[in-house]
Amino acid sequence: MTTETGRAAVEEILARAAEEGRSTLTAPEGRAVCEAYGIPTPPESLATSAEEAVAQATEIGLPVVLKIVSPDILHKTEAGGVLVGLRNAQEVEDGYATILSNAKAYDASARVTGVQVQQMLTSGQEVIIGAVTDPSFGKIVAFGLGGVLVEVLKDVTFRLAPASTGEALSMVDGIAAAEVLNGVRGGEAVDKTALADVVHRLSRLVTDFPQLAEVDLNPVLATGDGATAVDVRILVDPAAAAEPVRFSQDEILTAMNRIMKPAAVAVIGASAEDGKIGNSVMKNLVNGGYAGEIYPINPKAAEILDRKAYSSIADVPGDVDVAVFAIPAKFVPAALEEAGAKGVAGAILIPSGFGETGNIALQNEVLAIARDHGVRILGPNIYGYYYTPENLSATFCTPYDVKGGVALSSQSGGIGMAILGFSRSAGMGVSAIVGVGNKADIDEDDLLTFFEHDDNTELVAMHLEDLKDGRAFAETAKRVSAKKPVVVLKAGRTSEGARAAGSHTGALAGNDRVYDDILRQSGVIRAPGLNDLLEYARGVPKLPTPKGENVVIITGAGGSGVLLSDACVDNGLTLMSIPDDLDAAFREYIPPFGAAGNPVDITGGEPPSTYRNTIALGLSDDRIHSLVLGYWHTIVTPPMVFAELVVDVVEEFRRKGIHKPVVASLSGDVEVEQASEHLYAHGVVAYPYTTEKPVAVLGAKYRWARSAGLLP
Amino acid sequence: MTTETGRAAVEEILARAAEEGRSTLTAPEGRAVCEAYGIPTPPESLATSAEEAVAQATEIGLPVVLKIVSPDILHKTEAGGVLVGLRNAQEVEDGYATILSNAKAYDASARVTGVQVQQMLTSGQEVIIGAVTDPSFGKIVAFGLGGVLVEVLKDVTFRLAPASTGEALSMVDGIAAAEVLNGVRGGEAVDKTALADVVHRLSRLVTDFPQLAEVDLNPVLATGDGATAVDVRILVDPAAAAEPVRFSQDEILTAMNRIMKPAAVAVIGASAEDGKIGNSVMKNLVNGGYAGEIYPINPKAAEILDRKAYSSIADVPGDVDVAVFAIPAKFVPAALEEAGAKGVAGAILIPSGFGETGNIALQNEVLAIARDHGVRILGPNIYGYYYTPENLSATFCTPYDVKGGVALSSQSGGIGMAILGFSRSAGMGVSAIVGVGNKADIDEDDLLTFFEHDDNTELVAMHLEDLKDGRAFAETAKRVSAKKPVVVLKAGRTSEGARAAGSHTGALAGNDRVYDDILRQSGVIRAPGLNDLLEYARGVPKLPTPKGENVVIITGAGGSGVLLSDACVDNGLTLMSIPDDLDAAFREYIPPFGAAGNPVDITGGEPPSTYRNTIALGLSDDRIHSLVLGYWHTIVTPPMVFAELVVDVVEEFRRKGIHKPVVASLSGDVEVEQASEHLYAHGVVAYPYTTEKPVAVLGAKYRWARSAGLLP
Repeated sequence: MTTETGRAAVEEILARAAEEGRSTLTAPEGRAVCEAYGIPTPPESLATSAEEAVAQATEIGLPVVLKIVSPDILHKTEAGGVLVGLRNAQEVEDGYATILSNAKAYDASARVTGVQVQQMLTSGQEVIIGAVTDPSFGKIVAFGLGGVLVEVLKDVTFRLAPASTGEALSMVDGIAAAEVLNGVRGGEAVDKTALADVVHRLSRLVTDFPQLAEVDLNPVLATGDGATAVDVRILVDPAAAAEPVRFSQDEILTAMNRIMKPAAVAVIGASAEDGKIGNSVMKNLVNGGYAGEIYPINPKAAEILDRKAYSSIADVPGDVDVAVFAIPAKFVPAALEEAGAKGVAGAILIPSGFGETGNIALQNEVLAIARDHGVRILGPNIYGYYYTPENLSATFCTPYDVKGGVALSSQSGGIGMAILGFSRSAGMGVSAIVGVGNKADIDEDDLLTFFEHDDNTELVAMHLEDLKDGRAFAETAKRVSAKKPVVVLKAGRTSEGARAAGSHTGALAGNDRVYDDILRQSGVIRAPGLNDLLEYARGVPKLPTPKGENVVIITGAGGSGVLLSDACVDNGLTLMSIPDDLDAAFREYIPPFGAAGNPVDITGGEPPSTYRNTIALGLSDDRIHSLVLGYWHTIVTPPMVFAELVVDVVEEFRRKGIHKPVVASLSGDVEVEQASEHLYAHGVVAYPYTTEKPVAVLGAKYRWARSAGLLP
Repeated sequence: MTTETGRAAVEEILARAAEEGRSTLTAPEGRAVCEAYGIPTPPESLATSAEEAVAQATEIGLPVVLKIVSPDILHKTEAGGVLVGLRNAQEVEDGYATILSNAKAYDASARVTGVQVQQMLTSGQEVIIGAVTDPSFGKIVAFGLGGVLVEVLKDVTFRLAPASTGEALSMVDGIAAAEVLNGVRGGEAVDKTALADVVHRLSRLVTDFPQLAEVDLNPVLATGDGATAVDVRILVDPAAAAEPVRFSQDEILTAMNRIMKPAAVAVIGASAEDGKIGNSVMKNLVNGGYAGEIYPINPKAAEILDRKAYSSIADVPGDVDVAVFAIPAKFVPAALEEAGAKGVAGAILIPSGFGETGNIALQNEVLAIARDHGVRILGPNIYGYYYTPENLSATFCTPYDVKGGVALSSQSGGIGMAILGFSRSAGMGVSAIVGVGNKADIDEDDLLTFFEHDDNTELVAMHLEDLKDGRAFAETAKRVSAKKPVVVLKAGRTSEGARAAGSHTGALAGNDRVYDDILRQSGVIRAPGLNDLLEYARGVPKLPTPKGENVVIITGAGGSGVLLSDACVDNGLTLMSIPDDLDAAFREYIPPFGAAGNPVDITGGEPPSTYRNTIALGLSDDRIHSLVLGYWHTIVTPPMVFAELVVDVVEEFRRKGIHKPVVASLSGDVEVEQASEHLYAHGVVAYPYTTEKPVAVLGAKYRWARSAGLLP
C-alpha cells in the first residue's frame, strides 16, 4: 500500500500535530499525508513570498489557486484566504498580498506559514471521498458525487475501512447517480478504477492511522484518465483509535455451546408460587421437556416442582452450566459472585432495573463480576431464551415446541413476544428464540457465531436497535451469511439523522445510511419491517436456493400477472426474457388468446391440466430458475385442486432432483386460505389476497443467494 | 392570461407552420409563442448578415450566443449551428461566418433564415419546464432541475394543464431536490414564484393551443428576481388536440342509478344447468335476496329457478333496467340490439372474447350498438357486480351479504376474487364490488360519480391498470375525494418506462411518474400493493377523521415504540413534540423508569390501569389528535383484558363526543389475534405481529384528510 518512507512521513506529521496539540492538519500536511499513501493531489508548493509564489506558479503552470496556510485559520474561505483562477504573474503577485492582508484582518494573531500555490484543475467530475470514525462501526469510508445536488439528495455510499479495490468500485457504482460517471449527454466517462483506488488508499490510511478521526477529500476531480484530490481536510483525535474488547471465535463458541446446550441449569429465585417469574421459569423448564438437571435455588424452600431446592448455587452438588436469574436487580451482584465461583458459563439476567432504567452503574458492576469469573451474561432485562433441540425454554413466557431451522433474537421483549406468537400461529419451526435486552455482554455476533456452527439452524433472524460493536457484527455476519441467510430488522431507522460532525463526510454519515450499506456489504438481508422479518424467516428456508436469475410468472389472472410483475421489479428480480422456442412450448398448453411471454397468462377459465402442464414446463426447462404462480379461483380449478396439483408436480420434480423456488399468490374466495396453507406446508411459499408477500420472500432468497456467491 | 394580440400571434405562427407542413417551430417562432404568453426569453434578434449580427450583439449586450435558424435543421448543435460565449465584435463576426459554413457542410440544401443573436445569461439555476400530451391525461406540464444529475435521477413533477399558480408552485416545491432552489451552501435562493408563473403560463398556452404537442423550455434560468426561458423547442401535431367524448354528470348518474339499483334484471342466457354461468348468475340473483323482478331469457326453457323464462328480452312484459349477458361473445351484438330496443339502462357483459383476446372489432361493434340505444356497457370480460343495499349479486361468483360502506372495483377478475375473499375473511362491510374488465364503456369515473352520491358508500377502493380518460378520472376523483376517501391501486407501475418522445419532457414523462403525481393532485390515496388496497379499504372508514397532525404513541414495549416511530415517519405522520405539562401528566401514570416524551413508554410490567389512564389522557387532551398503541402481552395485562379496556375507554370518550383515530399493534402469543379482532370490530384498527400495518392505515387516513382540506 505504502512504503516505509510514506508511513514514516505520516507518523512525523501526526507527531508534530500532537505535539502542538492540534486537532486539524494544515493543507500542506494533508496533502503530504495523501501523497504518502499514493493519493494523487494537484501540483503545488508553499510560497513564503510573492516572488516565490510567482516563480512557483509559472513552474506549476497557470492558472493557479492560492490558499493561506496557517495552523490558526481553520476556515480559509471565510478568512478571505483562498483566491482561484489567477491567470498570470501579476495576478499571482497581487493575490499573495491580498491573501496576507485578508488573513491579518481576519485574525491579527494568526501564525502564517505561507501561501499554498496549487495548479487549478479546470475540468473533471467533482466527487467527494471521505473517511469518518463511526461509534459502532469504527473506520468507514464514504463516496459520493460532489456539488449541491448530492448534498441535498444525500446520494452517498459507505463501507467499512479497509475497503478492497473491488469494494471501493462497488461504492463508485453504488450511488443512485452512478450513471453520471459513465458519461451522459456527451460528458466524458471518468476513470472509475482511479476513483476506487483513491477510496481504497484512503481506507488503508485511516486503518493504519486510526487517530485520523475524519478525512474529507473534497472535491476529488475525476477525469477520463485519473482522479486528483484537490482539497484535503483532516481532523485528528487520539480517542478515535480506541477498539472494543473482543472474544475469539473459540472463546465465544465454547461459552455459547454450554449456554445453548447446558447439561444443568440453576434457577436463582425459583419459586413455588404461581405468577412469580421464578415459578414460570421452573414450569417452562420442566414442562418444556428439558432433559438436563434443573436446580431450583431458593433459601426458603425445600423443594420446588418436586425438585430439591438449594439455598445457594454453591450448595448444588454437580456442575452448573447456566444460571437463570429470577431475582430483583439489586440482589444480582451477590448471586452472580456465587454463580461465578460455581463456574457457570452463562448468567441469564431476566430482571430489569439496569441500564434501561438509567442504572448503568449496577450494570457495569455486574459485568465486572462476570468478567472476573469468565461468565458470559445474557441480558439483563430479557424474557430469557429458547433452544428447541434441547427442549430448553429458559423463560417466563410460555414454552415453544415446534422444532425447525429458524433461529430468532430480539433486543426488545415486546418484539420477542411477537416472534413467539407469530411462530406459534404460523407453526414456524424454530431452533432458538433469544432475548438480548440490554446486551451488557452477549450480543448478536456471539449468537451468530453459535448459530453458524449449529446444525439445527438454517437461518438467523434478528431484531436490533443498535450494535455495540458494529464492526464485529459486520465481520461475523459476512462470514455466517456466506453459509446461512441472516435477516435483520434494524429498528430506529428514522429516529436519528446526521450526527454532529466536524467534517463533511461526518455530516453525511447519518446513522441509518451507514447501517444500510454495511449490512448489505455483510450479506445481511435487511427486512423493512417486523412482519417482513417474520415472513422472511418463515419463508426463506422453505425455498431451495435458485440456480440463476431467470424468474417466470405463470398466472391464471392477467391482473395478478401485472401486479406480480410490479412486485418482481420492486424486489430486484429479473423477469426472464422468454426465448422463442420456450414461448412456443408454453403456447402448446395455453388457449390461443392467452399470452405467452412473461408473465405466461394461461387465462382464467382453464382446467387443472393447464396449470400443471405450464408449471411442469417451467420446472423442467433449465433456463428457468424460479416460478411465481398467480392463481385465480374458478369453478373449473377450485383452490384445493390447484394447491394439490402444484404440490404434486413440484414434488414429482423434486424426486427427479430438480429443486427450484416456487412461490404463489392466490386470488379467490376464502377457500384460498386453506389452499395457501397446504402449499406452504409443502414448500411452496403461498399467500392469499396479496401479490406482494410471496414475491418479497422470493426476493429475500435471491438477495441472500447473490451475496453468498451462489448465483452465477 | 394573454391578450387578443398574443393569441393572434400564436395562431399566425401555427397557421404558417401548418401551411408548410412542419411538425416543429423554429427557435424565433418558439420564442415568439412564449412572448405572446408572457414567458420571459432573453433579449435576442435575427441577423441575416455578419454586420447585422455585430450591431445586434452590441445593442443586446455581450457576451452573446449565435444559433442557426433553419426550418430544415432540427438538431442545431449537431450541425455546428450553435456558438456560445462570443465576447466581442470580432468573435461575433467570425462566428456568423463559421455557423453558416457549418450549416452548409451539414446540409447543403438546408434553407437558412438567418442567425439568432441571443444574450448569453451567465448565472442562475438551470431548470427544465415542459409540456407534453399524455395519451390518458391529455395536456400535462412538467418541472425539474436542469442538468445531468436530474436527467439521471429523474427528479421531475407533473400536473394536469392548465395548472394554477398555486399548483405550479407545489410542483416547484415538490421535486426531491427542491432545497436547491432555496439556496444551499451560499447559493442564491431563486424566485420560485417566477418559476411557477412560467409553468402556469405554459400550461395555459398548451391548453389554448392543443396542437402544441410537446414544448421544452430547456433550460429556464432562474435567478433571485426572475426566470428566463433560454431555449424553446416546440413540436406541433394537430392530432394532439383530440379530446375524448364525455357524458355529463347527470347522464352518468341517471344511467348508473338504474344500473346499480335496478327494478328489474334480465339474464340473457339464463340456464337451469348447474355449472353454466347463466345458471350461477340466476342463483346468485335469487339466493342473494334481490327483491326486484328477475327475468330469465332463454329460447329453449319454459322456466328457470321457478321463474318464467322468455325466449327474447323483447317478450318481457314490464320494463327492464339491466340485462346481464351470459352468452358467448359472438351472440352479444344481436342480443344487445334487442336489449337496447327494450330500453335497458345497462348491459352487463360477462363474456370474454372481445378486446382482451384481440377482437377489438367485435368490441367496437357492440359499443356502437349500445351508443345507438343509449345503453351503458359494463365490461365486457367481467365477473359482474354486487350492490349490497339492493341485495344484488349480478355475478357468476358467490353472493356477498356483509353490508357496509366500502365500494370496490377491479379491472381484473382475478383481483375481483381477491377482493371478495378478503372481504369475506375479514368480515368487511361492502356496498359494492364491480368488475370493469375491458372498460369498453363504463369506467372508474362513472363509478366514482355514482358512489359520490351513494349514501351507502363511505369509501371507494379501485384496482386499475390504465385509465381510458385519465383527465376525466382525475377531475372526478378530485371532486369525490373531497367528500369520501378514494383509494387506488395502480397496477403496471413498473412495466412501462419512458415513452418514445420527440422532446426532453416527453422522455421524462414515464407512465408511472405521471400517474403518481396526478393521482396525488386528485386527492387519491395510492395503495402500494393489493394487500394495502384491501387493508386501507377496510380500515380507513373505521377511523374518525383526525382534527390535527399530532400523533402520540403509547406503548408497553419500548421495542414496539421504536418500530412504531419508524412507521410514523415512513407514513408521513407527525410525532407530537410533547409539551412539559403534558409530559408531567403522563408521568403521573407511568413508573419512574418509564419514558414520557413520544413514544410514551409505560414499560412492560404495568397493570391495565396504566394503559387505561394514559390512553384516557391521550383522548382527553385537545392537543393530541391521534393515538398509536403498542401492546405487550404480559400476565398482568393479558391480551383480551387490554382489548376490552381499550374499547371501553374509547367508547367512553365517544359518548362524550370525543372521536380520535386510535390504532394498535399487538405483540404477544396467539391470543393477541382474537384481541386484535375485538379491537377492530369496535373501531380500533388493530393488528397482531406487525407494527407497520396499523400505522399505514392511519397514514392513509391522514393523507386523505389533508387532501380533502379537513386538517388545519
